[in-house]
Amino acid sequence: MADGLRCWEPVSWTKARVDDEFWGPRQRVNRERTLPAQWRQCKDTGRVDAFRVGWRPGAEPVPHIFWDSDVAKWLEAASYSLAIHPDPTLQARVDELVDLVVSAQQPDGYLNAYYTVVEPEKRWTNLRDCHELYCAGHLIEAAVAHQQATGSRKLLEALCRYADYIATVFGPEPGKKRGYCGHEEIELALVRLYRATGEARYLRLSEYFVRERGRQPHYFDSEARARGEDPQHYWARTYAYCQAHKPVIEQDEVVGHAVRAMYLYSAMADLAAELNDEHLLAACERLWDDLALRKLYITGGIGPSHHNEGFTWAYDLPNTTAYAETCAAIGLVLWAHRMLQLRCDGRYADAMERALYNGVLSGVSLDGERFFYVNPLASNGDHHRQEWFDCACCPPNLARMIASLGGYAYARGSDGVAVHLYLGGEVGTRLADDTSLRLIQRTRYPWEGSVALTVEPDRPTEFTLRLRIPGWCRRHTLRVNGEPLRACVADGYACVRRTWQAGDRVEVEFDMPVEQVVAHPSVAQDSGRVALQRGPVVYCLEGVDHPGGVHRLALPPDARLRPRFDPGLLGGLVVIEGQAMALDSRVWDRALYLPADAVRSSPVILRAIPYFAWDNREPGDMAVWLWRG
Amino acid sequence: MADGLRCWEPVSWTKARVDDEFWGPRQRVNRERTLPAQWRQCKDTGRVDAFRVGWRPGAEPVPHIFWDSDVAKWLEAASYSLAIHPDPTLQARVDELVDLVVSAQQPDGYLNAYYTVVEPEKRWTNLRDCHELYCAGHLIEAAVAHQQATGSRKLLEALCRYADYIATVFGPEPGKKRGYCGHEEIELALVRLYRATGEARYLRLSEYFVRERGRQPHYFDSEARARGEDPQHYWARTYAYCQAHKPVIEQDEVVGHAVRAMYLYSAMADLAAELNDEHLLAACERLWDDLALRKLYITGGIGPSHHNEGFTWAYDLPNTTAYAETCAAIGLVLWAHRMLQLRCDGRYADAMERALYNGVLSGVSLDGERFFYVNPLASNGDHHRQEWFDCACCPPNLARMIASLGGYAYARGSDGVAVHLYLGGEVGTRLADDTSLRLIQRTRYPWEGSVALTVEPDRPTEFTLRLRIPGWCRRHTLRVNGEPLRACVADGYACVRRTWQAGDRVEVEFDMPVEQVVAHPSVAQDSGRVALQRGPVVYCLEGVDHPGGVHRLALPPDARLRPRFDPGLLGGLVVIEGQAMALDSRVWDRALYLPADAVRSSPVILRAIPYFAWDNREPGDMAVWLWRG
Repeated sequence: MADGLRCWEPVSWTKARVDDEFWGPRQRVNRERTLPAQWRQCKDTGRVDAFRVGWRPGAEPVPHIFWDSDVAKWLEAASYSLAIHPDPTLQARVDELVDLVVSAQQPDGYLNAYYTVVEPEKRWTNLRDCHELYCAGHLIEAAVAHQQATGSRKLLEALCRYADYIATVFGPEPGKKRGYCGHEEIELALVRLYRATGEARYLRLSEYFVRERGRQPHYFDSEARARGEDPQHYWARTYAYCQAHKPVIEQDEVVGHAVRAMYLYSAMADLAAELNDEHLLAACERLWDDLALRKLYITGGIGPSHHNEGFTWAYDLPNTTAYAETCAAIGLVLWAHRMLQLRCDGRYADAMERALYNGVLSGVSLDGERFFYVNPLASNGDHHRQEWFDCACCPPNLARMIASLGGYAYARGSDGVAVHLYLGGEVGTRLADDTSLRLIQRTRYPWEGSVALTVEPDRPTEFTLRLRIPGWCRRHTLRVNGEPLRACVADGYACVRRTWQAGDRVEVEFDMPVEQVVAHPSVAQDSGRVALQRGPVVYCLEGVDHPGGVHRLALPPDARLRPRFDPGLLGGLVVIEGQAMALDSRVWDRALYLPADAVRSSPVILRAIPYFAWDNREPGDMAVWLWRG
Repeated sequence: MADGLRCWEPVSWTKARVDDEFWGPRQRVNRERTLPAQWRQCKDTGRVDAFRVGWRPGAEPVPHIFWDSDVAKWLEAASYSLAIHPDPTLQARVDELVDLVVSAQQPDGYLNAYYTVVEPEKRWTNLRDCHELYCAGHLIEAAVAHQQATGSRKLLEALCRYADYIATVFGPEPGKKRGYCGHEEIELALVRLYRATGEARYLRLSEYFVRERGRQPHYFDSEARARGEDPQHYWARTYAYCQAHKPVIEQDEVVGHAVRAMYLYSAMADLAAELNDEHLLAACERLWDDLALRKLYITGGIGPSHHNEGFTWAYDLPNTTAYAETCAAIGLVLWAHRMLQLRCDGRYADAMERALYNGVLSGVSLDGERFFYVNPLASNGDHHRQEWFDCACCPPNLARMIASLGGYAYARGSDGVAVHLYLGGEVGTRLADDTSLRLIQRTRYPWEGSVALTVEPDRPTEFTLRLRIPGWCRRHTLRVNGEPLRACVADGYACVRRTWQAGDRVEVEFDMPVEQVVAHPSVAQDSGRVALQRGPVVYCLEGVDHPGGVHRLALPPDARLRPRFDPGLLGGLVVIEGQAMALDSRVWDRALYLPADAVRSSPVILRAIPYFAWDNREPGDMAVWLWRG
């Protein structure tokens, strides 16, 4: 059991099998379609072969500074997948790739395909912009996942050598560079490396990177001067872009590039846990409130602006122009999951679930081969998933999230087990008293609110089973072995403490009506509007279901809305149907503005589908927020 | 009287005095505050002294490529002002400036402060980006205005020499460059020069610039190659940015940088009139419909995007992030006014008026010394007027528009006179039969809908007086010498034909209730919302009047709204008052999203002020579009 502030240790993805009708097929598509397609992309674009470090000036393609990270995330995703579902073809690709990556390592331990061959003289000269430590971080995460999935230590040892070399270059000691990466990632990766190896030096290096960030004199200033540049001419204008505008302990607003922010805050939460650092925890909680109460899309998307791929100001949540990068929603899951390790508090799990079922899952097509980088909440019909991107961070990030999903569902604490996510499947863990425990979960979540858990300790033992009561749920019932139970709900978790016997059965029923949700009145872009949500799933309207266009539909406040499972639609999902009003378009033939009393509307059938499933049929317009009228 | 398609010749600003209680004080502030303040800015920033062409490498400030245009627009504005109100101090500054500008002319006629001294070897090497002909155009407009205002031909002759030199450089003839400017302006300026001098070669040069635009092989391609650049690497990515993506005659969507577009379309309308070119007229009408029916803010602002300072797609009219550059709204007035010369059609006058009273006038503070470059329709409180800008196109553009306003109000045609705008004052013109006519207009427009016109021909004569019936007006009455008259209304103008005697009196009464206006349902950003308009004036709510914040106010569909003239507020204006509903904010303390049925609202007093007058009191949030609820 973890010490200190890390009260709730997640049950590893290696121990949590997912096999329900919602996520099961998605993990299969991830394995059968997404991973092979992404492998081909990494091969075809030269990302894999870049690790041959055979590039010479004039050759095409020229490796790019962050290609390593794409390959590393694919390798991490493939490792997760192998752990939950053996696959010889995938295993062979992974083995080949591991050999190739390790072969690129330099005698001093350095491992970066770009700087080894394209600009070797510029190694460590532009941490601010060039993602060098970020790439190292993703390779470290891949190595940890690979070792945990396969048992092979080959890649892990190479990355330990690289991390050890990095520790000779960076740190507070005299003679070392006092640098850190402009794109956070290595910080959380080093905590993973510490946990996988037990080597405290990796935790110390992570702590150094996090604590040094934003201190004066500013490393990015001196680094820019060393390159002969004026630090004032920083293209992003402010170090808030990379959360380096002040020491992290003093930060209280989520700012800048959203993915960077999430990765930093994830590392801060990890360090708060490992170092028992209440100040880091307090900073995380301040930042969390700023995000969750002022800067979070209803889809779990974050970072509204294309300009900085990130945050702007409080309550600025435009819909059509939302950036809401897929990686940022994934980053929110990573951070929320780490906050849950510090506090078993439903608000973190609510945000994690909100992102997973909406702004994360929207990132991939149902066929698993096309991806959103940007996830707007409204579209005029010109936004579609693509097979790949020049900057391809999102696709393999999705692949690793879906493959490792089981690892986000359960945690064990000093007095028992917590269930954060409702996924059908099975998990095995060991309680604080060394009892071995299996939990079998059966549910049609998120389409139905019934969850049945079978508790299988290897001997009768007393512990608390914490069952998350989702924030969206206004009424739930709980039964143990068929008997109704009124359990106390603390911080969003129903706590059932008893001596559990093998075969004990817990049933939870969450009321899951269609909810009309409104946004805080300071969200100007949503005022006068309503979104439809049922359970954790946020809905949208698509043009293909509403030929007159979705932006002219209004939902009367007393609209009767009914959920219906449609097995033939988009792989089977619950649609919401009812009656809306559509503005009469004829009066608009020769007008852009009219007196309100000149406008008429007539009833139409409304059909909303889950937001995550949009843009899988005919291209068209889309809206999450409907106006009321 | 004009020939051909130019059926309605505007009565010059030199002949139209404005002295009502709305525009009179604004012209005075323009003269007493704005012009002196802008002169100081042009002096202090080095814009004026740049014409000394004494800059040497290393000296600061370095003249900028479009500084000439700022000074030229100031000179044009000052000339207009001198014509309507003599002012010895201003006259002295103008004289001094004219001498200075003329002194900068090179022996070959070239007149550009930047290229003469900073990069003389690059003259005419980058028409696409460097505004060289644009600056020439503004100097030509200044010269025409200066000659017409003062009678002095000094500047006009210098600019004729420059234009003659330009004609030796550019044109379809062998040996000349087949170029044209990336930023349109010289095209309309050359038509003005032609009209002022009668020299057809200036019309031909304008025609050449307009017809050559967008033709293949593309001049900007070859010009880029000549600079050693790859034309594919054009920073703006598409020649649609400067309306050079295809020949103008084929264009049917307003695209790209909004100011450039307006200046081009203005020139196209001018050329359609002068050349009797139905194809150019048809292109103008197609483009007009695209703008007026799909891309026009209710304020008359145009060009929603900061990205290209211009147009995006149909119905994309975001409020908070609206760019709606002041110069673009002014450009719309210029274009609309030229379309009115082709067709006396109220839709052009409606757009001209919409822009004037809203998106143009918002560009300047009530004290005349601060300016908006960007005119959003909603603000979180962080948008404020500034005294000046590095790119200072808007302030002097406002100054010239306000000083020359009288020139937009009246036109004469073959059968009489048209009144496009209701401004108190007096105008003199000569009818087709050579009758000399004075019109005296008395009105409290836009605050009241009553207009009284006294008709003073120097002898009794029959002609048609066309009185615009504004598109916003649903009911009007007309009297001639006290007798009610039902005049036929054609294309938005009431036509009163009779033999007019000196002293005949026409009274029009426009019903001017508060209107709740809605936008076309395809304008996603306004759906479910309503704007308040009374007469031509669009209203907004400001935070200073609504301490709880304007974005949480909802207007019930049956809200009773009353106009009230408040003489003490912001120089005296009509406010709109009534009752709105404000969302209860207490339930939102710890939530960003809530079920709609958890939210309550309570009545509050609403006070709307004219949009043009916002940001003249305490800084705060602002909204034009209110939600209905």
